[in-house]
Order: sequence, then structure tokens, then C-alpha cells
Amino acid sequence: MKKITIQIHCKDQSGIIASVTSFIANKSGNIVYIDQHVDREQNIFFMRLESEFNSFSIDTFKTEFITVLASKFKMKWRIYDAKDKPKMAIFVSKYDHCLYDILSRYNSGELHCEIPFIVSNHQDLEYIAQNFNIPFYHIPVSKSTKQDAENKQLDLLNSHNIDFIVLARYMQIVSRKLIDQFQNKIINIHHSFLPAFVGAKPYHSALKRGVKIIGATSHYITEELDAGPIIEQDVARVTHTHSIDDLITKGRDLEKIVLATAIKHHINRKVMVYNNKTIIFY
Amino acid sequence: MKKITIQIHCKDQSGIIASVTSFIANKSGNIVYIDQHVDREQNIFFMRLESEFNSFSIDTFKTEFITVLASKFKMKWRIYDAKDKPKMAIFVSKYDHCLYDILSRYNSGELHCEIPFIVSNHQDLEYIAQNFNIPFYHIPVSKSTKQDAENKQLDLLNSHNIDFIVLARYMQIVSRKLIDQFQNKIINIHHSFLPAFVGAKPYHSALKRGVKIIGATSHYITEELDAGPIIEQDVARVTHTHSIDDLITKGRDLEKIVLATAIKHHINRKVMVYNNKTIIFY
Amino acid sequence: MKKITIQIHCKDQSGIIASVTSFIANKSGNIVYIDQHVDREQNIFFMRLESEFNSFSIDTFKTEFITVLASKFKMKWRIYDAKDKPKMAIFVSKYDHCLYDILSRYNSGELHCEIPFIVSNHQDLEYIAQNFNIPFYHIPVSKSTKQDAENKQLDLLNSHNIDFIVLARYMQIVSRKLIDQFQNKIINIHHSFLPAFVGAKPYHSALKRGVKIIGATSHYITEELDAGPIIEQDVARVTHTHSIDDLITKGRDLEKIVLATAIKHHINRKVMVYNNKTIIFY
Amino acid sequence: MKKITIQIHCKDQSGIIASVTSFIANKSGNIVYIDQHVDREQNIFFMRLESEFNSFSIDTFKTEFITVLASKFKMKWRIYDAKDKPKMAIFVSKYDHCLYDILSRYNSGELHCEIPFIVSNHQDLEYIAQNFNIPFYHIPVSKSTKQDAENKQLDLLNSHNIDFIVLARYMQIVSRKLIDQFQNKIINIHHSFLPAFVGAKPYHSALKRGVKIIGATSHYITEELDAGPIIEQDVARVTHTHSIDDLITKGRDLEKIVLATAIKHHINRKVMVYNNKTIIFY
Repeated sequence: MKKITIQIHCKDQSGIIASVTSFIANKSGNIVYIDQHVDREQNIFFMRLESEFNSFSIDTFKTEFITVLASKFKMKWRIYDAKDKPKMAIFVSKYDHCLYDILSRYNSGELHCEIPFIVSNHQDLEYIAQNFNIPFYHIPVSKSTKQDAENKQLDLLNSHNIDFIVLARYMQIVSRKLIDQFQNKIINIHHSFLPAFVGAKPYHSALKRGVKIIGATSHYITEELDAGPIIEQDVARVTHTHSIDDLITKGRDLEKIVLATAIKHHINRKVMVYNNKTIIFY
Repeated sequence: MKKITIQIHCKDQSGIIASVTSFIANKSGNIVYIDQHVDREQNIFFMRLESEFNSFSIDTFKTEFITVLASKFKMKWRIYDAKDKPKMAIFVSKYDHCLYDILSRYNSGELHCEIPFIVSNHQDLEYIAQNFNIPFYHIPVSKSTKQDAENKQLDLLNSHNIDFIVLARYMQIVSRKLIDQFQNKIINIHHSFLPAFVGAKPYHSALKRGVKIIGATSHYITEELDAGPIIEQDVARVTHTHSIDDLITKGRDLEKIVLATAIKHHINRKVMVYNNKTIIFY
Repeated sequence: MKKITIQIHCKDQSGIIASVTSFIANKSGNIVYIDQHVDREQNIFFMRLESEFNSFSIDTFKTEFITVLASKFKMKWRIYDAKDKPKMAIFVSKYDHCLYDILSRYNSGELHCEIPFIVSNHQDLEYIAQNFNIPFYHIPVSKSTKQDAENKQLDLLNSHNIDFIVLARYMQIVSRKLIDQFQNKIINIHHSFLPAFVGAKPYHSALKRGVKIIGATSHYITEELDAGPIIEQDVARVTHTHSIDDLITKGRDLEKIVLATAIKHHINRKVMVYNNKTIIFY
Repeated sequence: MKKITIQIHCKDQSGIIASVTSFIANKSGNIVYIDQHVDREQNIFFMRLESEFNSFSIDTFKTEFITVLASKFKMKWRIYDAKDKPKMAIFVSKYDHCLYDILSRYNSGELHCEIPFIVSNHQDLEYIAQNFNIPFYHIPVSKSTKQDAENKQLDLLNSHNIDFIVLARYMQIVSRKLIDQFQNKIINIHHSFLPAFVGAKPYHSALKRGVKIIGATSHYITEELDAGPIIEQDVARVTHTHSIDDLITKGRDLEKIVLATAIKHHINRKVMVYNNKTIIFY
């Protein structure tokens, strides 16, 4: 039994759903999940579909899919083999809470991915990588070595065929070259409910403004700081009694859960991105 | 332009989605919403679909739907004309918060329904009905008049072609006859997160147990007390400082929102019921 | 039995709590609530205390309080008689959901205040005021009449000895004169989780940014737009399926609850304001 | 500088707060935190207080505290030296998520306690204990060895002067002897919002009942199963699309956060227990 996931988007038109589902039916596929969304403002149709087949060649399927459907409706599409595990690289600095959380989920089988390596600009968390038996590369970043460090990162990413990157509280600005190569494939966790408190030290800003709710936001990295497509957000209540340390501690729990949720959506091919916004098919 | 909503459930089989969507496409319908769910334990397929047509006869459509689809797949189905407003009767006793909330939503156009009348076993809330210009029937209920009261209620419901009933903190047990006639069509609000604290005085029980979270649950009435299919639940945090009055006050806000949400799901034909559980297609 | 509420703030020093509580004990008062907070950054001590007395003159109490405590510790303080109901004026424009919510809570005894009148720049909601038997004043506001309208508002507020003002979705900028006279006494509801989406049309901005959470914020009005001390915030989850109308509808429920909570905190003298932030003693 | 935490409860009487705070002031203590609560139904007064002293003997303090205050008001009390770290034993079986979470918090300095050892009836999680350099004792439990296992557990607990025990998804019923010795000192995590779904397999029961919200509850163990004083609860939304595996996965995040919160409250001496309920002074 072969299972695939299909993501489609195109201009909204009549008959797309019928055409796609009939195409699957003609290939004796059984649709086990279908969801669609129409963005009425922009007139764009989005669809996500999971289907099972008894005998199946993914190459033949793709060829016919292009001929019969994609060309006709001018679709942008992706077809994933459900057994393929995406390769995820983790970038960290010195904070360990997100890393521990990701690795313990990975260990317990919650994340359907491979983790070929962890990269850091510091050596502080190397022992955690060792505990979980994952290769750790220390690539220091300073003003003078920035260019060099980026090239080392890119070499590692390319030589391991990395599919997407998770910045698990990586305290460096990612280079334009990386962003270009991994468009909508670099997941960041920002410790505020964006668009509030963009940039550095959001918990300090939250304390200063006297908010009653703090948050965390996971988003894809784009060139504009903290302005990429939002994948997941969550919040927690705070009061006047919370000090900056309390906010940071409470925030850690938010960051862990929000980042893990975003990673899972990405791994399970639930996310589509259009016009700097995400469509997430649960 | 005609818009319809279709709800289907049947044994899970290959090709249902393709068959249904092709059927719609053949009638030149444009599917604007589709969602499906498969209950893997029970092997049941559920589907909800909204479709628009330029020219359309609902009777012809139904006839062909039965011939081409329903018989073949042994479907249970409902087809609703989107412009039809369901007729909702409201039952109340003495608490006014849910009634005020429903009527002010109704007034502001949030509820796509008609409210032919309000029934109560007390006269306390008659003035609210008058303020909102909705007929109010006072049907007292006592041990000796119970039978008689039920008949009066049924007469009212039938003579107004009521589609569904909302018990907006109606403090009486509803009769078996009513439940039989309005299966999965009587929406109740219970002031606890069911199945905790079934029956009377749930806030008192919550206080006694020392829970840190209280809740409210909206469900369809079945013969077993507080055991019908759950439509919506919500919760709020409480602490040791909350007295019984505080719980009741906090709970009122939960009850209002939870009941209103359940009513909207029902009105918008988003709810399907199977095996004492709801499938809610958002 | 007389009950009073005391709010105090001053520079943090040793012995304040012992001095205050002994002072109460010497007057045979029974403390039924005490809470305090120290802002360590600014070194300010805050305290809220409720106390009951058998025989009591509030004037004598205040005089001795000043002599014995306030002068010694250089306190800012307020002493409220618990039976005094603050007088609340409501300003509205055309949206009715917050008004309905406030008035139905008022009707059911949830708000310990008086509502001498409702003011609006439109006549649309006059009928609601009439239903609840509350005087309604229509004061139109246009560019040319702005000055005049403000004077009429101030006359009304002063002639009724209004203690605080609630802007229940009042769609006008409040004048500087009003803000000066009612410092930390004008409660607004803004339909975003501030500081995100300051200004007009926050739901439209939220939709455009693709946030996964929307919010509402109640705050005291200061001269800087949407930048006053935050009293209460709450949020709700949204997804890509929510249209602008869905956000507005979902937001209404947030606005109602958040504004009502802020009003209750204010009425129950639970709020202290310092340095553009609130301390709220639950 | 010496810092202590005092917990008091006694029959509610006039003058307690003044007497306690004056006592502290007389010893030149600076109160940095005070909170109190009166249970009006049972007429019991509760208080928690943190105070700092320049020079201080805890033994002298306790002696005078008893003479001057505790005897007079018939108080039950506890006085903790803030620098004392309570000793926490962790009991686990095979689930690793709570253990990883606790140990990574411990590692990052979030938990002010010592962890002398981890006990398990299985060897599966020994490697995690080793990664974190914490002694691990494998004490198998079977019907025939139950008595023996309990004695081994008690020996370990007593020889290490353990203050409290955390059952981090320990899948065994704890013996009466242990409960007697560690009253209100054994913290359990139950994977439902108690009192709903007491006992085994609560996620399965939740799925069967069709709830829209699942929860987790941390409570002190008493002899009655899942009926001890609740310390913390939290919930998460679910829908008809969630399978039993989804509930279990979602629940893991709840369990981790709820248990960690309860542990922190306990460690920070924020919890008092009376009549099977907790008072938690935040």
C-alpha cells in the first residue's frame, strides 16, 4: 500500500475538486483525507489530499497528474510520498529548552523526520547532542567570520540534503543566501505574539508595556525581520507580580510547544504558504 | 444563484468523494466548501459540502441524488437550501443571561434563524421577550400539570413548525415525547465540563472538589441525563479565592458563549451526530 | 458593620505592612482581604486591604490614617466606603454588543455601580437604553461641532457627578479636556491584543498579517492613542478559514468579556495605576 | 541576609495579620510577600508570608513564634528556610516525556530542589537518568514482590531524607504505608481533567464520550484513587478528527506542563492543603 500527500493551489475555477478526485478514483486510489480552502479576496484555490493506492508508480502518477490536471488548471503542486522522512537541521545557540523538547519528541517517535545534525555558534549544548547521539557542528560566528560561517553552514546543509531548518532559539540573523535557498523552509521561534514586540528582548518590552498576556510565534524566516508567514502562536496570562525572570520562564514553555507544533505541521505537509500567510490543513 | 448544503454519512468505501463531486460538477455546480471525516473504528464516512448552482430545482436534484448516489452507497443524507432559516424555539426559566445573549446576537444578525416564540415555566423573563418583540408563552409546570404542560408545548412547537429547541437554562427535565420528536434537535447548556459534575448544582460540586478549572457544555438532549452528544465545551480558570457566587458569575460567561457557539453550529448545518458523538465541520 | 477598601502606594520601606495592619487592629477592624506588591525595579510598594468595623466614622478614620500612617510613609492613598456605588457613564456609537452585555450584567446585579446615563453620537442605540430604562443623550459629533459636543459631555458628566466613563465601542477620539479630568477613569475597549494593531481596523490588519490568534484589550485612555495602562486582555484562536466577518464576529465575544472584566475590576477598586501600568489585586 | 517562608492556618479571628506582621517587624524583619485567604464556609484563616532578616536564628525565631503567636491563635504552621532545597524523588515506569521535562527544567535551574534518585519498576528509562547523572534504582513490582518492593522504596526514601515524591507517570498504585508517611507530599499527574475520567485509560474514555476538551490534573495522592487535593489542571481542545493516538500525543504536552507547574508550586512552598483542597498562594 502506497500513500501520498498532494498539495495544490491555483486560480479558483469550477470543477477542480471533481477533476482531482476523479483522477484519483480512475487510478484506483482511495482518498483518506481531503481539505480545501478558497481565498475569496485573491481568488485562489488551495487543496490538500491524502490518498492510498495498491499498486503505484509515483513517477507515472506525476507525469499523468501534470498532463491531465496541472496544465489544465495551471496548478502549482507538490506530491509527497508519505514514507519519505524530511531531513531537518537544527540551529541553536545557548538556550537548551527548545532543543531538549525537540529531541525528546524525536526520541519518542513523535516527529516523522530525520535529524542529520545540529549546528551551533557555541559549544554549550554539544553535550545534549551527544546524549541523543546526533552529530554536532560548532561553527562560531563573528563579524569577521560571518561569510565563512555561512559557507560552512551551506556546505553542511547541502551535503546532507537537508529539507528544512529549525532555528531553536538561534540568536543570529540568518543570511540572505540561506533564506533564498530555503524559502518557506526555515522555521523560527520568536518569543512574542507577533506582530507585537518585533526584534530583540520582547519579554522586556512586554514587561514595560504592562501586557496581561505574553506569547510566542513560530514563523518561516523571510528577509524582513520577524515578518514571515506565521505558522503557530500561543499565549499565557501574566500579572503585575511577574518579574522579567518569570516571563522568561513562562515563555520557555510557550516557545517549546509552539515551535514543536509548527515543526509537526511542516513535517506532516500540512502547511501551504501564499502571499506571506499560511494555510494549515489540520 | 442557488446555494445548498449537503450532509452525508455511510459505510466507508472507495470512490465516494469522486462520485459526489462529479455528480455536482455534472449539474454545473461549484463546490465552495468540502470536508470529510472517516471514523476508522466504526468504518463510517462523513461528508459536508456546500455548492452553488446557477439554475436549479431542489426537487429534481434530490431525486437524482437518491438515484445516482444515495442508493448506490447506501447513504444517509440531508440537503438544505441555504436560504431556509431554521425555526428555533427558546425554553427558559428564571436565569436571563443566556436569553439576553441569544436575543442580542439575533438582533445583530449573527444568527441565521427565526425565533417564533419563547416558552417559560415562569413569567420572570416575559419583559425581555417583549423588549425584543418575540411572543412569550407562560406554561407553568408542576407535578400535577406536567402532562398538560407538555401537550401545550408540543402544540406550540408543531403549530409553528419549529425545527429545533434551545434550552437556555431551562430548569426542567424535558419529557420523553419531546425528546423522541426532536432527536438531536434539543440543545441544552450544562454548567460543567461534562462528564464531570452531571446533574444538579455542578458549581457547588466543583467548589467542593477543589477543581482549578470550571466549564460549560452544550449538548443534544437524550434520555440519559447530561449524557447526550457534546456540541461545544469551554472552561475558565478558578482559584481557592473564588466563592460559590464567583463560580456562578464566571460560569455565566462560559454558558453564554458555549451555548451561542453550539446554536450557530446547528443553524449553519455544521453538526452531524453518530453514535452519541458529534462531527462538527467548521 | 462598616466595610472599607484601602489602596496605598509609596516608596518601599520596612514595616509598612505591620504599621498598617496594627493601625487597623487598634481601631478594632477585622482585615478580610490583604494583598501587596513590590515593584522591585522602581522600588514602589503597593497595597490593597479590605477591613470591617463595628462602629466607625470614615472622616475620623481618614484623619488619623493621614496623621499616623500616610505622612510617615509618604503614602498616596484612597479609602473607599464599600457601600458607595461608583457612577458610570457609558459612551457608545452604533455597535450594540458591548452595550447589551453591560446592561444585562447591570440588570442581573453583577455590577456594583450606578449608570446615570448613556451618551452617543448617533441615535441607533437609543431603543436599547429605553428598554433598560436608562437616560440616553444624543450628542452628535462633527468637525464643526466637536468643541460644542465636548462641552455638552462635560456638563452632563459633572452635573451627574460621574466617577468614571466606559467607552463601549465609542468610535470617536476623546478630547484632551475629558482625559485630563478623568485620569485613569476612562475605560476603553480596543479590538486587538495591544500593542499589536494600534489604531483603526485592527481586525483587517490581523487578517492581512495572518495571525493565528486575535485579541481584545481594555485600557485606560491616555493622550497617546491605544497606549494607556492595560487592565485586561483576552485572545481567541483563528485559522486561515476565517474571513474578516468571522474575525469581527469572534472579536465581539472577546470585546464583551474583556470590557466587562475591566469594568468589574475598576468598580471593585481592584486596580491601581503606576507609571502607565496597572496593578490588579484579584 | 536570611529569608524565610511562613505558612499558617487557624480558626479565623480578629487581629491575626496585625499580630503576625508586628511580630516580624519587632524582629526587624522585612516582609517581601504576604497573602492570606479566609475560607468563609469553614471559618479557617490561611496565610503565607516571606520575610527577610539581617541577623537571624531560625531556632530562636521558631521558639518565640510558638510562644507569642502559635499558642495564642492555635495555629498550625510551617517555617521554611528559603535556602533549603527540598529533596525530591521521582518514580517512573516507561513513559519518558514527564521525566525528560522535569530533568531538563532541573538542569536549567528552574527547579529549586535536589533530586537524589529516580526509581522505576522498569529499566527502560535508566539511560535518561544516566544522561542527567542522577542515580537510578530499578525496583521491579509484581504481585508477589509488591511488599518487598515497597520496603525497598521506603528504605531508599528514608536513607536519602526525601521530602516529597513525584509520580511522573508511574503506572503503579502506591502503597498505603507510603501515603501515610508522605501525606500531601506525593504529587501525581493524572491524564484527565478530574473528576472526569477517574482511573485507567482516561484518553480512551474521553474519545468514547466525545468531549471537545481533554485535560490533565496534578494532585496529591490520597488513599482514594484520583481523589486527592488538586494542585493544577490544564486543558486542550480536541475535535472529531483526533484519534486516540492524537489525544495521547496532545495529552503528553498537558501532562508535562501541569506536572511541572505543580512541582514548582510545591517546591516554592506555595501550596497549603486543608480538607482535601489546596490553597495556592501565587
